[in-house]
Amino acid sequence: MKVLEPDQIIAKMLERDAFSQWLGVTVEDIKAGQCTLSMVIRDEMLNGFLIGHGGISFSFADCALAFASNSRGRHAVSVETSITHHKPLQKGDHIFAKTKEIHLSNKLGTYLVEVTKASHELVATFKGTVYRTSRVWETI
Amino acid sequence: MKVLEPDQIIAKMLERDAFSQWLGVTVEDIKAGQCTLSMVIRDEMLNGFLIGHGGISFSFADCALAFASNSRGRHAVSVETSITHHKPLQKGDHIFAKTKEIHLSNKLGTYLVEVTKASHELVATFKGTVYRTSRVWETI
Amino acid sequence: MKVLEPDQIIAKMLERDAFSQWLGVTVEDIKAGQCTLSMVIRDEMLNGFLIGHGGISFSFADCALAFASNSRGRHAVSVETSITHHKPLQKGDHIFAKTKEIHLSNKLGTYLVEVTKASHELVATFKGTVYRTSRVWETI
Amino acid sequence: MKVLEPDQIIAKMLERDAFSQWLGVTVEDIKAGQCTLSMVIRDEMLNGFLIGHGGISFSFADCALAFASNSRGRHAVSVETSITHHKPLQKGDHIFAKTKEIHLSNKLGTYLVEVTKASHELVATFKGTVYRTSRVWETI
Repeated sequence: MKVLEPDQIIAKMLERDAFSQWLGVTVEDIKAGQCTLSMVIRDEMLNGFLIGHGGISFSFADCALAFASNSRGRHAVSVETSITHHKPLQKGDHIFAKTKEIHLSNKLGTYLVEVTKASHELVATFKGTVYRTSRVWETI
Repeated sequence: MKVLEPDQIIAKMLERDAFSQWLGVTVEDIKAGQCTLSMVIRDEMLNGFLIGHGGISFSFADCALAFASNSRGRHAVSVETSITHHKPLQKGDHIFAKTKEIHLSNKLGTYLVEVTKASHELVATFKGTVYRTSRVWETI
Repeated sequence: MKVLEPDQIIAKMLERDAFSQWLGVTVEDIKAGQCTLSMVIRDEMLNGFLIGHGGISFSFADCALAFASNSRGRHAVSVETSITHHKPLQKGDHIFAKTKEIHLSNKLGTYLVEVTKASHELVATFKGTVYRTSRVWETI
Repeated sequence: MKVLEPDQIIAKMLERDAFSQWLGVTVEDIKAGQCTLSMVIRDEMLNGFLIGHGGISFSFADCALAFASNSRGRHAVSVETSITHHKPLQKGDHIFAKTKEIHLSNKLGTYLVEVTKASHELVATFKGTVYRTSRVWETI
């Protein structure tokens, strides 16, 4: 038994994560405690105002939180998360989620996630705290 | 020109809201400033732990926020929202989102949303604040 | 060694809690997992707009969170809290904080706190999650 | 009539802000849309665990939010704020609050505030959104 490396953990998570696959999440970069993801806004992600649904930006940032926190080697689950929306998203927008680990203790981790357009324009700011269980991401 | 009724506004929003349709959101009840929605957790809504993705519960609660706040007759957009997850969701779970309008002023509205299972078990608590634009939901 | 009762825990906490004493917090009611507190807004609690400082309403709600969560018998510490302000407070206002325990698990607890005036007008809504340590509130 | 400069606005706010004075807030730096504040943890700021009360860190960050957002020239009021606590504060700790304006529109502004010890250790992360009224900070 050995703890998996960050990229192995994320590959394992993503492989079974049907909703991240539906979103079309691509892992651009992954290191212990941080990641950058990308995706593209599609027709079926728009709301009644014909802009990206708030749930899409949130879900994308939440994926980044899950990958960044789990990459630390233990199963981590979201406790409390919040998002502030700054700019609307349009169909076809290529967006990025970049995490910053602002605190990590034995039981808790806190992360900021910035969601930006390819033009680097900030579209949303997300803050999330996870609970780190004792279960390790390990090889079988 | 006349301001639309709450149920007319929500029908108009939902009709064009591709993501809410993908989620399978059903409007159970709608009154000025409040609504109850339901949906069912499907395979493509699960995450890598094979439970409902946090983004799904959030998106569902966010729909309820949008419908409850817009039902007040003016276009309202989300400013800041947060969610606390209490229990995991499984494939097939029939879930409900029920809003409570905790404050409404000319420019801002604040809502709580409880997400529960059919068994009334609480799975998530959501708090959201919207900005109310001056644009009215009106008949053409 | 015996676990203290809710009212004994809160008496013990409050006795050593210099800031709650400065605020003038009075315990109106305490049961396992819930409490109601009261206090009065004084001159030195006003901000530059001559209304109650946002930090005062927050601190008051945070006291209620601490008392309600610790009354469950284990030392609990705040992880993440948020507050939405609805109405300004004036000097002399007699205010109340009433908690609702929305979820309690072995390691985490989530609470809503409503801050109201004596007239029952809602002035702020607070949501907070605590981490429950293994340390018990016990008799010596 | 002329709009006041950022340092004039903050001087005017602080002069009448009794609670910030009680906290002992010092303005280290102020520019349009940002500020750095400092203060020292005193006996009367401790809670029942004899560490800094969560309401103190929040109030300090909330002052920074108020100063940074009002320095933009219009009266701004807090809508929704949240704080994540990372480390306890001890009596005598000299702490700093540094703001980052993450978004500014006509009606809303969003800010992050980091609360650190003199050693640069991060003790809390705060996110806040303000509503910008039409009232200008002006010379009489």
